[in-house]
Amino acid sequence: MEMRELVCGVVDRYRYIRRPEMRLVLRVQDEILSALRDFLRGEGFIEILAPVIGPVTDPGIRGARQASIDYYGHGFKLMSSMILYKQMALLSVDRVFALSPNIRLEPEESVRTGRHLAEFRQVDVEMAHATYHDAMNLGERMVAYVLGRVSRACSGELEALGRELRPPRTPFERISYGEALEILRSEGFRVEYGVEIPWDAEEAISSMFDSPFWIYDYPMTARGFYDREDPERPGILRDFDLIYPEGFGEGVSGGEREYQAERVLERMRMRGEDPRDYGWYIEMLKEGVPPSAGFGIGVERLTRYICGLRCIWDAVPFPKVPGIPSP
Amino acid sequence: MEMRELVCGVVDRYRYIRRPEMRLVLRVQDEILSALRDFLRGEGFIEILAPVIGPVTDPGIRGARQASIDYYGHGFKLMSSMILYKQMALLSVDRVFALSPNIRLEPEESVRTGRHLAEFRQVDVEMAHATYHDAMNLGERMVAYVLGRVSRACSGELEALGRELRPPRTPFERISYGEALEILRSEGFRVEYGVEIPWDAEEAISSMFDSPFWIYDYPMTARGFYDREDPERPGILRDFDLIYPEGFGEGVSGGEREYQAERVLERMRMRGEDPRDYGWYIEMLKEGVPPSAGFGIGVERLTRYICGLRCIWDAVPFPKVPGIPSP
Repeated sequence: MEMRELVCGVVDRYRYIRRPEMRLVLRVQDEILSALRDFLRGEGFIEILAPVIGPVTDPGIRGARQASIDYYGHGFKLMSSMILYKQMALLSVDRVFALSPNIRLEPEESVRTGRHLAEFRQVDVEMAHATYHDAMNLGERMVAYVLGRVSRACSGELEALGRELRPPRTPFERISYGEALEILRSEGFRVEYGVEIPWDAEEAISSMFDSPFWIYDYPMTARGFYDREDPERPGILRDFDLIYPEGFGEGVSGGEREYQAERVLERMRMRGEDPRDYGWYIEMLKEGVPPSAGFGIGVERLTRYICGLRCIWDAVPFPKVPGIPSP
Repeated sequence: MEMRELVCGVVDRYRYIRRPEMRLVLRVQDEILSALRDFLRGEGFIEILAPVIGPVTDPGIRGARQASIDYYGHGFKLMSSMILYKQMALLSVDRVFALSPNIRLEPEESVRTGRHLAEFRQVDVEMAHATYHDAMNLGERMVAYVLGRVSRACSGELEALGRELRPPRTPFERISYGEALEILRSEGFRVEYGVEIPWDAEEAISSMFDSPFWIYDYPMTARGFYDREDPERPGILRDFDLIYPEGFGEGVSGGEREYQAERVLERMRMRGEDPRDYGWYIEMLKEGVPPSAGFGIGVERLTRYICGLRCIWDAVPFPKVPGIPSP
C-alpha cells in the first residue's frame, strides 16, 4: 500500500468512514463482539469493567513503548494489557472477561506490517484453576463459534466484502515453538531459539496454513514474567499464541500464570525489572492468588481475519496507526 | 464514611475485592452490561469500538481536568467522552453505541460526593435524525428494561445486598431545568439560573423522588458547545439528564447535537475555545454530518443505583477515586 493512500484513510477518517466497505465491516464487528460475549457468558464467565489507567501495566509488549499520564502528581500508565488486574479479579469470581482497550506505542516501522495499531482492544479472558491446555481448548471453541455464527449472520456482508471465509478445521493444529522454528527454517527463515518470532517469519508461517493453529511452549527468554515456567521443563513456558491462517498472523496470546510471589520476583530479577515498581501486585501475590490461565483475543485482528481486510486500520472505526497523528 | 476506611477499600483493593458483597455486585454488573447491549441491539443499534485517545475530546466536563499523553511527539488527550467520535460514526451507520471508558481528573473534593470516579465507563448511544424527545423515550425504555431484567435475573444477589429496588414508574416524570430550580428553591437551595446544578442540590432533588426522572432544557451557559440550542428559544438547549431517585443523582446525560459548522464555531467562540484545537472535527462538520441525538449512561452509577451502594467505588472492580493513587 502506498504511504500516501494509507495516511488519507486514517487522517481523513471522517471521509473514509463513509465508504460502503466500512459499514459492512462495522456490522460484522458488532456481530463478532456479540458472539464473543454470548459464548463466554454461556461458559459461565462474568464481564468486568477493564481498567484504562494504573500505576503499573504489562511490561511484556515486545518493542512497544507504554504511554504515561500525570495522575494527581503520580506517574500512571495506560494499560498495555490488563493481565495483572485479571489475576486480582479472580480473587472475587472464578471466570472473568472484559473488553479491554490497550495502548502500545509500537515502533513506527511496524506500519509496514499492516497489523499493528497503537490503540486496540482485546477481549481478555481468565479462569482460575485452569491449565494452558484448558485455555487453548476454550479459545478454540470460542473462535470456532464466532466464525460459524458470523458466517451465518453476516453472510451478505462477507459476500459484499468479497470474503470467502473457510470454516476452521477442529481441533486446531498445535505445534510447539521448537517445531515452528523447524518449519520456518525449512522455508529459509533463520529464527534463533529463545527469541520472539519476528513479524515477517510469523506472517510466513501463517501463510503456510489454511486454518487457525496454535504455537505453544515459548521459551522463557521470549516472554513476560507472568507466563508460567513449566516446573518439569525449565526454561519453557506453559503459554501459547493462536495464529490465523492466510498470512493474517497472531490473533490470540495467553498461557498459565506465575502466581507465586517468589517465582514472580525471580522472573522479574531475570528480566532486570524492579519489583518495587509493581507495589500492589507483589503485595497481592504474597497474600495469595489462585493459579489461573487465560488469554487475550485482539478484536481488530479477529475482525481483519474474518473480513479478509488488507490492513488492520480498516478493521476499526477510529484507527491509531503507529507514528501517525489522526482523529 | 471515614476517609481512612475509604482509602483502605480502594488502595488495598486486592483485599477488599474478596468480600462477598463485591462478588454480588460484579454479578449484577455483568447482567446490567448484557441487558444494556441486548436492548440496544434489539433496537437496531450497532456496537462500535470506542476510542481511548485522540487529539481532541469533550471539553464540557464541569470542573474536571483532562489527562494527556505524548503520542509520537503530539499531545493527545484521553477521552473524557467520545461525543465528537459518535458524530463521525453516524457517517457510516445510523444507530451506534459503545462501551466507552472515560478519564476525568475530577477535583479531589469530589470524593465527598461518593459518586465521582476519575475513570469510569459510559454506554454511549447516538442516533441520526432523532430529536431529544426520541432520545429520552429510548433512554427511558432502556432503563426500565434493564431494571426489570436485572431485578428478575439477579433477585438473589439484590436480596443478599439488602436492596429493595422499586420498579420505575413509566413514563418517567419530565421537569424542565427552570422547574427544577423552583423545586430546589422551595427546599432552600438557591441555584442561579444559567449554571449547572451543583452536586449537593442535585442530590437533594434526587432524594425528593422515588422513581427516575428527567430534567431537560438546560440553559446554554451550563453546557458544552455540542448540545443544540433550540432554534425557537434562544439560550435554551435541547438536552437532558436522567436523575436517579433516592439521592443517587444524575445517571444519564444527553441531547440533540449542534451539527452545523457555523453554529458550532459560534458556540466555541462564546465559550472562549479555539476552533483550531478541534481540527478534524470542524473539517468534518464543514463537509456535513447528519443531525442526531443521543446520550451516555454511566455504567458504575447505574450499578450503584441498582445495587443501592453507598459509594460509586463499590460499583467497579478497580476504582480510581479522584486524588487517590490506587491499583
